[in-house]
Parts: sequence; C-alpha cells; structure tokens
Amino acid sequence: MNHTSFFPKNIQVALKNDPPGAWMPVLPKECIRLSSGYPAPELVPSKQMKAAVGSLIEEEQDLPFHYLGSSRAASLQQQIQSRLEKRGIRVSEGELLITSGACQAIDLIARTLLDEEAVVAVESPTYMEALEMFKNYTNKIIAIPIDEYGLKTDKLEMVLEERKRNDLPLPRFLYTIPSFHNPTGTTMPFERRKHLLELSVKYDFLVVEDDAYGELSFNDSVVPCKAIDPEERVLHVGSLSKVVAPGMRIGWIAGNKELISACKWFKKDLNHPFSQATMAIFLEEIQFEERINWLREMYQNRCNTMLKALEQFLPSSITWYVPQGGYFVWVKTPGVDTSRLLEQALAMGVSYVPGKYFFSNQEDGTEFLRLSFSYSDEEDIVDGIRKLGELFAPYYNG
Amino acid sequence: MNHTSFFPKNIQVALKNDPPGAWMPVLPKECIRLSSGYPAPELVPSKQMKAAVGSLIEEEQDLPFHYLGSSRAASLQQQIQSRLEKRGIRVSEGELLITSGACQAIDLIARTLLDEEAVVAVESPTYMEALEMFKNYTNKIIAIPIDEYGLKTDKLEMVLEERKRNDLPLPRFLYTIPSFHNPTGTTMPFERRKHLLELSVKYDFLVVEDDAYGELSFNDSVVPCKAIDPEERVLHVGSLSKVVAPGMRIGWIAGNKELISACKWFKKDLNHPFSQATMAIFLEEIQFEERINWLREMYQNRCNTMLKALEQFLPSSITWYVPQGGYFVWVKTPGVDTSRLLEQALAMGVSYVPGKYFFSNQEDGTEFLRLSFSYSDEEDIVDGIRKLGELFAPYYNG
Repeated sequence: MNHTSFFPKNIQVALKNDPPGAWMPVLPKECIRLSSGYPAPELVPSKQMKAAVGSLIEEEQDLPFHYLGSSRAASLQQQIQSRLEKRGIRVSEGELLITSGACQAIDLIARTLLDEEAVVAVESPTYMEALEMFKNYTNKIIAIPIDEYGLKTDKLEMVLEERKRNDLPLPRFLYTIPSFHNPTGTTMPFERRKHLLELSVKYDFLVVEDDAYGELSFNDSVVPCKAIDPEERVLHVGSLSKVVAPGMRIGWIAGNKELISACKWFKKDLNHPFSQATMAIFLEEIQFEERINWLREMYQNRCNTMLKALEQFLPSSITWYVPQGGYFVWVKTPGVDTSRLLEQALAMGVSYVPGKYFFSNQEDGTEFLRLSFSYSDEEDIVDGIRKLGELFAPYYNG
Repeated sequence: MNHTSFFPKNIQVALKNDPPGAWMPVLPKECIRLSSGYPAPELVPSKQMKAAVGSLIEEEQDLPFHYLGSSRAASLQQQIQSRLEKRGIRVSEGELLITSGACQAIDLIARTLLDEEAVVAVESPTYMEALEMFKNYTNKIIAIPIDEYGLKTDKLEMVLEERKRNDLPLPRFLYTIPSFHNPTGTTMPFERRKHLLELSVKYDFLVVEDDAYGELSFNDSVVPCKAIDPEERVLHVGSLSKVVAPGMRIGWIAGNKELISACKWFKKDLNHPFSQATMAIFLEEIQFEERINWLREMYQNRCNTMLKALEQFLPSSITWYVPQGGYFVWVKTPGVDTSRLLEQALAMGVSYVPGKYFFSNQEDGTEFLRLSFSYSDEEDIVDGIRKLGELFAPYYNG
C-alpha cells in the first residue's frame, strides 16, 4: 500500500523540496563547531534555571503542570511586553502571542498568510529554516539581494514597481532579519528601515521582522522596524533563544491584533506552562539588562577574536562583512565552492555552514560560508580559523 | 487599514467558525471543576519533576538548553517505544514522532492529510479540540454516531457504502478515541475495532486513533487499534498528559513511516529539549507500571464516587454511561438544554461542559453534559453532583 497517495496535492508538492535540515551532516564529536548558531555553553544559565524550577514548584506546586492555571506562566506575557517596551515597541495583550521559539512564530505567520497563490519576498541570502517554511506553502518566492547594509531597499522598490507595472501579484509579506542578520551579520541602517516601511504602505504588503539577535548589538542599540510602524505593517518576531537558551523554546510575535488573533487561532500545540513559568521566574530573578550587557561584551570579544584570526590565517582574496552584533560572520571565497570542501573541513576538525543553503537559488551562494562565533571559546575560534586557512590556502596560492 | 484582507481565502473561511476554546467561560475561583479534564493535583508528580530537573542539570549542564545535544532528550524516544511495545505496538525510530501533546499530533496529521477537498470522519460526539483542528482545513466532516460501546461501526459501514454507491468522496481518515472516549467515556470492544480496520482497508481510509486515556483502564487492559494493524492504516496518537502532566507537553504519533516523515516535515516548532529531557529522567527514575496501577485505582475510586452520587442526587430521568476507565462520565438530560444552565451552575459553584460543543452539529448535543471525575477530590465530587442535583431537579419534578 502506498501511503503517500493520501497526501493532498500541495503537500505532495512540498515534499518534493529538499527535506528539512538536509544542509548539515552530523558533526564529528571533536569538531570545532563554527557552524552552530548556539549560545556559548558557559553563557547558558543552567544553574539559575534549576533554581527557577525549585522556586516555581515551591510556590505553585502542581499548577505549572496543568494546561492552565500557573500565574507565573501567565506573567511571562507581561515580562515580554516590558522588554519590548524598552526597545520602543508598545503592544497590548492581544497584540502579543508567545510561541515555541521564533521558528514556530514564522511558521504560524506562513500558515495564516500564505497559500499556493501567495508571493513572498525574502532577503538573499536568508535564514534557511524560514525559506523551508515558506516553501511548504508556496513556490512563489522573490529574493531581494542584500549588501553590507542589509536588504537593498532600492532594489526591492525596483522589483515591486516592475511587478506592479506588469500586473504581477505583489508579495503578501517580506521576511527580513534587519539586525545582525542570519547569515550575513549585517544591519540595516535607519534610513533603509524607513524606506522599507514606506514601500510596505505604497505596495501594500506586510513586513515580518525576525529580531532574534536584535538585542545583541556590540555598540549602539538598534531601533527595530516595529518601533517605527504607525500603520501596523510589521509583525515583529522575537526569541529568548539567543539571549537565554534555545532549549526553553520561548519566542513571540508582536503586531496588529487581527493578525495575532489569527496566528493564535492556528496555534494548536497549546501553551507550554512548565517552560514558560520557569522562564518567567528566571527573568524575575535576574537583572536582564545586566545579562544583556554581559552577553554583548562576551560575544563582541569572540567576534573580534574571529575577525583577527580571519585576517591572520585566511588567504587575502577571501573577504567578509564586519558584524555590529549577533552571532555570525559571512565569508566570501571567490572561485571556491564551499559545499564541496565541507567534508574535508570536518575531517580536519572544524565546521561551517556552506553559503548555498541560505539562498532560494542555491547556485547564488556557492562562494560563501557562514561562521558562528557564538558557540566556541576564543581558543577554539582561533584554532578553527587556522584550520580553515589551511583548507582554503591551496585554492589561492599561485 | 483592514489587515484581514491579507488572509488567503481558506483562512478567511476558517476564521468564520467559532473561535477556538469558545466553549467555556472563565471559571469562578471557588468552583468545583467537574468540567476540567486535568489530572488530580495530588497525582501530578511536581516534586519528582523538580528532582528530575536537578539530576538533569547535574548530569548534562547546558546540553538540554540547546537545540540539540541532550542525550536525555534523545532517550525519550526509546522510552516511549518501550511503553508502546508493552501495549502491543512495535515501532522503529522512523515510525514515531514526539509532539507537544496529543493536540499538536492531531493538528500535524490534519496539516499533512487534509485540504479543502478532503472529507474527514469523526465520532459524534467527539473531542472538541479535534473538531476545531479539522475545521481549520475542511468543512467536509462526516459524523458517525456512537453508543455505549463507542463508534457504531455498522453505521459507519452504511455511510461508506452509500457514499461509494453515490460516487461521493470517501473520508481521508476517521478520527476515533476508542478507549475511554472523550467525552462519553465509552470503549470499543475488540470486535468493533476489528471491524473498523476491515472497513479502513475496504474503503481505503486511514484511522487516527487518539489513545490519550488508553492506559487508564479500571479493569482489563485494552488492546489499541494500532496493535492489530498489519496494513499500517492506523496513526496512533498518545500523550503523557493524562498519566504524568499536561504542562510538560509530551505526546506522539506512531505509524507508517511515510506518514510520520511528512508530519515531521511540517512540524516547525523544533524539539523541546528541556521538557523532553526532564520527562526522560523522570520516567527513568520512577516505576511507571506502578504509577499507572496507582492512577487506575485512584481514578476508579473517584469514578465510583461520582457514579454513586449521580444515583443519589440526580432525578431518575437523567441517565449516563458507566465508564471502564479514563476521566469522564457522559450524562443525558432529556428535555433540558445544558448550555442554558451553565451560568446558573457556575453561580452555584460547580462546572461541567455542555454537550453541544462535542458535536459537529451542535443541536445534536443540547441534552448532554460531560463530567470529569479526574480533577476534584471525592468530597468535592459528591458536593458538586449534589449541586447539579439541585440545579436539574426543578426540570423533572412534576
């Protein structure tokens, strides 16, 4: 019996794409993981989390183990509202939905806004998980290039104007990571953000702002798009994965209440009271501002170490963008297909993510790779980059 | 600006249904909650869960807080496989997907198997959350009645045969809760299960077996449909919500590997390592078999207390099914619309769920209500039923 015949046509089409997560092989155990967009092990507050569980159960006994009823789980909503307010984003209760990380947030937005007919615009390159999620709904993906200042809004305007002139459908939304972009580490300046929002009004589309790294700026704080959005065009996606711990699965969507209400309607995993209540207590017990400042400093140190090592060990034809925050450095390797060298890199004991997986058209990304400075310590970062220097040297000498 | 205009047509249609969870008002604080399908507070292992978190963090430090890497989170899969094996269900790794509770499992099945054209068959009455989830995909819902022995498979056969004769599309799947049914508490005998599986082969549909209560039998163990399924027609949905704690959000789907693989493809909230690893350690540290036996005894006591109180306090025209396990008693109130009396019941300090919400056609369920004996202690159960006796008495005297 052929079980796949039970799938509706759109599901059968989606299942023909690359399977989710196909981009990375399992890493060898002793590998320096410059591929992993994980927080550093020593920056994950595991002991405080244990203490938070202790306080929680002392205080609430069985309540966080039921579907509903934990006042702590409920208070997470207010805490996230306060965090957002500090970043210039004011939302009421009905304008915020807590999700299982940014991934579920993006998927819910796709679920409520996309169908086979819908056009969606993305940055090129962009977060590969988001690409996968959109491709589960539509094949009509428009890729807009980015440069060292993030999304090229002038190019976006040209594309939109041309589509309008040719009577082609305009995108339902544009998905952007404006701050400390994944994978390129770039950040959109204020003027581009303004321009993007003007375009969203003029060409009637929504903006999905993935702000997972937004608080991790090395220098000045960055103004989120959602903070300059009087027309409620922006759905702001946030996460505690990069500033607390991904394994707790806490993210959110903030935005217009009709849109949030629809996302809530289609969110069918219910709440996660135990994780949410634990996180709420943890957030109450720490000084979040101090934690953020500490993380910024730690990640900036790692980033500087990586940039110095890149200068020292990589052939001079290889270039990269200098990030102002976040987790990633985006590296260009002219003439060299990084996906073909990955196996050799792993054998040498270092990993990276080949650039092509971040592109809707993978051929555009063969000469790039993404390095993460978040997970490895500074010694390993230097060692890893030295190995990459050895890996790439033969392709550029002579 | 009208944000709802951004929704695709099928989403706009779905949003016209009753909103999710609309069936119950917020309960007054001092209310005896005979509406809540929650485990009893004193049967929730909050202290052991705290100890499990302690062991977990001592052993794995930061690992359960990352996306991947906790060997404990990984071991949950094997533990669930062993539990299933004890119930006669043998599945390999690729035939099992851990989900955030049974709800997410049912929603993922709907996501991969339903579209606007699809027909789905349900029991009447059935779990209201499942009804909501199916209605998010299709309006073509066939309701098959149940009696005190669960799904009437003879009636199902008639409906299928008639549809076939009239060249109407057959259901893509039938959703059933064969053991200790929600809301009716009924259990399908072995013969009906066999018959259902024969029909699934003859009329080429899948069976979604929601087995959330399956281990909570008061007498003999019940054989799940999945255990007698050589043709791999059954997707078995399970959960630890009713036997451990719903707030941990651990459920699963077990079944054919193509179907499981598709559900995994569309599951976009990633894993929940902290909850999953905590649950894995908890399961290792307890004697699960003993726990189950203890729960059976406790719930059977509560059930008996409720049945006795119903005999004692309710007017003799009111009838109910006697459950063989699970959480619920299904009560028939001839001539009285239970949804109209709910507000009065809450004012008297007792809650129930009006029957109509469990029916695809709500008018079929006005003379029913669901009582849960799981959450309240025996004293409260007696007190609650006494109040219900007072509530209904005026409608049957004279």
